[in-house]
Amino acid sequence: MQETTVVIKKKIKFKKPVLVEGLPGIGLVGKLAADHLIKELKAEKVAEIISPHFPHQVLMQKNGVMRMLKNKIYYAKGKKHDILILVGDVQAITSEAQYEVCGKMLDYFQSCGGTMIYTLGGYGSGKTPEKPRVFGSASHKHLIAEYKKLGIVFGESHGSIIGAAGLLLGLGKIRHLEGICLMGETHGAYVDAKSAHAVLEVLTKILDVKVDMAKLTERAKAGEAFMKKMEAEAAKQKGAAEQQLLPAGGKSELSYIR
Amino acid sequence: MQETTVVIKKKIKFKKPVLVEGLPGIGLVGKLAADHLIKELKAEKVAEIISPHFPHQVLMQKNGVMRMLKNKIYYAKGKKHDILILVGDVQAITSEAQYEVCGKMLDYFQSCGGTMIYTLGGYGSGKTPEKPRVFGSASHKHLIAEYKKLGIVFGESHGSIIGAAGLLLGLGKIRHLEGICLMGETHGAYVDAKSAHAVLEVLTKILDVKVDMAKLTERAKAGEAFMKKMEAEAAKQKGAAEQQLLPAGGKSELSYIR
Amino acid sequence: MQETTVVIKKKIKFKKPVLVEGLPGIGLVGKLAADHLIKELKAEKVAEIISPHFPHQVLMQKNGVMRMLKNKIYYAKGKKHDILILVGDVQAITSEAQYEVCGKMLDYFQSCGGTMIYTLGGYGSGKTPEKPRVFGSASHKHLIAEYKKLGIVFGESHGSIIGAAGLLLGLGKIRHLEGICLMGETHGAYVDAKSAHAVLEVLTKILDVKVDMAKLTERAKAGEAFMKKMEAEAAKQKGAAEQQLLPAGGKSELSYIR
Amino acid sequence: MQETTVVIKKKIKFKKPVLVEGLPGIGLVGKLAADHLIKELKAEKVAEIISPHFPHQVLMQKNGVMRMLKNKIYYAKGKKHDILILVGDVQAITSEAQYEVCGKMLDYFQSCGGTMIYTLGGYGSGKTPEKPRVFGSASHKHLIAEYKKLGIVFGESHGSIIGAAGLLLGLGKIRHLEGICLMGETHGAYVDAKSAHAVLEVLTKILDVKVDMAKLTERAKAGEAFMKKMEAEAAKQKGAAEQQLLPAGGKSELSYIR
Repeated sequence: MQETTVVIKKKIKFKKPVLVEGLPGIGLVGKLAADHLIKELKAEKVAEIISPHFPHQVLMQKNGVMRMLKNKIYYAKGKKHDILILVGDVQAITSEAQYEVCGKMLDYFQSCGGTMIYTLGGYGSGKTPEKPRVFGSASHKHLIAEYKKLGIVFGESHGSIIGAAGLLLGLGKIRHLEGICLMGETHGAYVDAKSAHAVLEVLTKILDVKVDMAKLTERAKAGEAFMKKMEAEAAKQKGAAEQQLLPAGGKSELSYIR
Repeated sequence: MQETTVVIKKKIKFKKPVLVEGLPGIGLVGKLAADHLIKELKAEKVAEIISPHFPHQVLMQKNGVMRMLKNKIYYAKGKKHDILILVGDVQAITSEAQYEVCGKMLDYFQSCGGTMIYTLGGYGSGKTPEKPRVFGSASHKHLIAEYKKLGIVFGESHGSIIGAAGLLLGLGKIRHLEGICLMGETHGAYVDAKSAHAVLEVLTKILDVKVDMAKLTERAKAGEAFMKKMEAEAAKQKGAAEQQLLPAGGKSELSYIR
Repeated sequence: MQETTVVIKKKIKFKKPVLVEGLPGIGLVGKLAADHLIKELKAEKVAEIISPHFPHQVLMQKNGVMRMLKNKIYYAKGKKHDILILVGDVQAITSEAQYEVCGKMLDYFQSCGGTMIYTLGGYGSGKTPEKPRVFGSASHKHLIAEYKKLGIVFGESHGSIIGAAGLLLGLGKIRHLEGICLMGETHGAYVDAKSAHAVLEVLTKILDVKVDMAKLTERAKAGEAFMKKMEAEAAKQKGAAEQQLLPAGGKSELSYIR
Repeated sequence: MQETTVVIKKKIKFKKPVLVEGLPGIGLVGKLAADHLIKELKAEKVAEIISPHFPHQVLMQKNGVMRMLKNKIYYAKGKKHDILILVGDVQAITSEAQYEVCGKMLDYFQSCGGTMIYTLGGYGSGKTPEKPRVFGSASHKHLIAEYKKLGIVFGESHGSIIGAAGLLLGLGKIRHLEGICLMGETHGAYVDAKSAHAVLEVLTKILDVKVDMAKLTERAKAGEAFMKKMEAEAAKQKGAAEQQLLPAGGKSELSYIR
C-alpha cells in the first residue's frame, strides 16, 4: 500500500453533511469530545482510513483478533445536515504524510457532498482554567460574526494549530470548503474531560443535537488508558530500532531486526 | 530501483499454498523456526526480494563473491497445501517502507493462489519461561476455535505486533486473506531456540509435516552469529554518516562520504 | 496534496520579468530586503505557493482567521523588466523537498517568460562589519564583468549557499536561466537591517528603481518578531512528537498524538 | 527536479566500455585513485549527474561562479575497452536515495553498451599496513580465478561494502552486468595515498594503461582539503536547521530558516 486508502464500509447518500474532526491531540480534548458524540448519537461507522503513514504495527485485541491502526468515520442523521465524525488511533508524523492523509480525507468528504468542517482540539495554556473557554479560528472572516454568538472566542488564541485540526481547514479552504477549529482551553499536560465538555456544549448547539454529558468523565478515563497503551507501543517501535539483541557484549544497533 | 522487486528464480504452479513468515524479530524466534523448517523440509528457493528500503550495502562473502541484502521465498511440497516460507536478512525501518514491502509480498503470494498466512515471532515478556507457551493473534474471529485446539493461547498477549509479522496479516485481511501470528513466549533480550522449538511444534502440526528438531539449537548459534554481524554492519552504515575523516582537527560531519 | 502547488491569484502578462528571491535565511538579510522592496514598490500579490514540504500547521491570526504556511510571489511594474519578488514564511528542510519546491518555482517563473534571477541572502562571517560589503556568486562567468561595476565583490565568499538562494541559480542554470546571488556581509547570529540595506542599495541600481530606506529598520523589528514566533511554532511541532501526555508516570513517547 | 538526472555533455560512441567508480569513501582511497587516473589519462568529461538526493546547496567557487553538487563521468580511449570513470563530490545518504541514484547510473552505463564494472574503495582495518594489499569482492564466482592472478586477495575481507561501490555491483548483477570491487587496505581514519597507489597498480594492469604515480601524493593533499571543506558545508547545512537566530533569549529551533 503506497497511498492512504479510505475503505468504504457503508454506502449512504448523505444530506449536506458537515465533518467533525476529533483525532488525538493536546489534552485529548478533541478525541474525548468526538468519541463521546459518536456514542451518544449512536453514530454508525461508514468508512475506515488505512495509511502507510500510520505506524507499521497491528494491535492485539483481547478477543484474540489483531487489527490495523486506523482512522474511522462515523455517521449520524442530523436535522439540516447529516453529521460525519472523524476519529482514530493516531495522526501521521511528517509534514508530507499529514498533507497526503488530510488530502485523502477531504477527497472523501467532498465526494459525500460536504462543505463545512469543524475540527476539535485543545488550546494548551500551561494553566488549569476554572471555567474553560472555547477558542475559535476560522477559515474565512465572514464566519466569525455568526459563531461568536455561541460564546466562541476568536482572535485571542496565539501560535499555530498543528496536524489535522489545522490542515483540514487550510487545505479545505483551497478547495472552497469552510470551517472552524474549536479549541477547549486546557493545561495541555493531561487528559481534560472538562475542556472536552466545554467544546461539546458549543458543538452540540452548532449541530442542533442534544447530548447527555453524564458518561463523559468515565469515558475520558478509558480514552486515557488507551492512549497510554498507544504511547507504549510507539516507544516499543522506536526501541525496536535500537534493541539490544544480546544482553552481554555491549550495545548493538538492531535497526533492521523487527 | 525505486520499488521493492520480487525476482522469480523458479516458476512453479503451486497447490493452494500457505505462506509462513519468519523474518528477523524478537529473540529471532520466527527466524530460527523458519530457517530450520526450510532446511528440514529441504525447501528450494523460488524467489528473492530486493528492495530500495533495505540497507544500501552488499555483504562480502567468504567465497569472494558479494551479495545484496534480501528477503527470500522457499517452497516445499505439502499434502493439502504447498508451503511457501519467507525469510531474510532484514526488515525495512520506516512505516511507509514496511507497508510497501509487505504489499509487494502479498501481491506475489496472491499471484501464487495463496489465501492463508502464518507469521512467526516472539512474545517478549522480560522473563525466561520454563516451558514457553505459543500465543496467537488471528486475522478473523472464526479462526480461533479451530486453532485453539492445538494449544495456541489467544487473547492473552498484549500490545502490538511490529513489522511484517503484523502487517502481512493486517494488509492481508484487506485483501480477503486470512492468517494467524504465532508468537513463542520468550525473554526478548536473547536468541531463543527453545521458544522457536515451541512454535515449530505447533506449526508442523498445522502444516501436517514432520520435522527433526535435533539441529535446531546448533543452527540457532549460527543464526545468532550472522545477526550479530548484521548489527555491526548496520552500525557501520550509521557511523559512516558521522565518520571522522581526519583524527586530528576535531569532529567532522562526513554524512556524504561513503 | 502531494506536490508543491503554485496557486495563481492574478493572471498578468509580464514583460520580460526578473525574479528576486528573499526567503528566510542567514541574518534574515534577504527576507528584510525583499519584504521592504515589496512595500516600497507597492507590489501586488500574484501567486501563492503551498507545499506538503512546509510544516503541517496553520497560523492563528489576530483577526480570528487561520492561514496556511506559504511562500508568495509579488509583482511590480519595471522599466525594462517587470519585477517578481518571492518571499515567505519558511523553506523546506530536506534536500529532496528543496529540489522539488525550487523546481516548481522555476516552472512558474519560466511560464511567466522570465530568464534572470537575483537571489538575496546574508554572508555570515561571525563578525559585525563596519560597512557591510555585498558579495556575489554568479550562474555564469560572463555576468561578472558587468555586475562588478556595481561594487559587488565576486570570488571572495567561501563555502556554500544553502537552500533556495543557491538552488534557484543552480537548477535555473540547467534550464538556461541566468542569475546572481547577492549576499550582504553580516555577523550571522542576529537579524541585520544594515546588511539588508547594503544589498538593497545594489539591487535597486540593478532593477533601476528608487526605494526609500527610511522604514527598513522599523520593518526589521517586525520581521524579527514574526520569525521568533515561527521558531517557537517549529519547536512546538517537534515537541509535540515528544510530548508527555501525563505528567506523572515517567516519560512517554507520544509521536502520534498531535 | 524529482529524479536523479544524467546530463550528457558529449555524445560519443563508446567501444565496449568498462566503468571505473571512485566516489568519496573510506580513506578517500577510491576517490584519489579515480581522480588521479582521470588526470593522467587526460580523460574528458562526458556527463554530469545532478540529484535531488545530493545536498541542497551550491558551492561558491574562487572564480565567482557558483556550481551545483554533482557526480561526473569522464571518458578515456582504451585499447580493447574504452574507460568511463565515475567521480564526484558526494554520495546520497538514505538507502532509497542510493538505490535510485545507482539505478540511474547503471541505466546510463548500459545505454553506453557497458557490461563490466570496477568499483574502488578502502578496506579499513584500524591499522596502518606496511605494504597495503588489494582486496577484492566479485559479482560472480567465475571472475575470481582470472583476477586473482593480478594479486587481488579474494574472500579475506569481511563485513559489507556500503554505498555505490557495493550497490553498483549488486544492482548491476540483477541487470546481468559483471564487476569487481577493489579495496585498498587502509587504516580508515585518514586520507591514504599509499593505499590508492596500490589499487591503481592493480587497476592499470586490468585496464592495460600506463599511469605515472608521481603526482598522486600531491593530489592527495588537494583532495583532502576539498573533502574537509565539504565536511564543513555538510555540518553547516545540519547546523542551519538548529541555528540560533538571536544570541540572547535561549535556544531556538530554526529548522525552517535557511
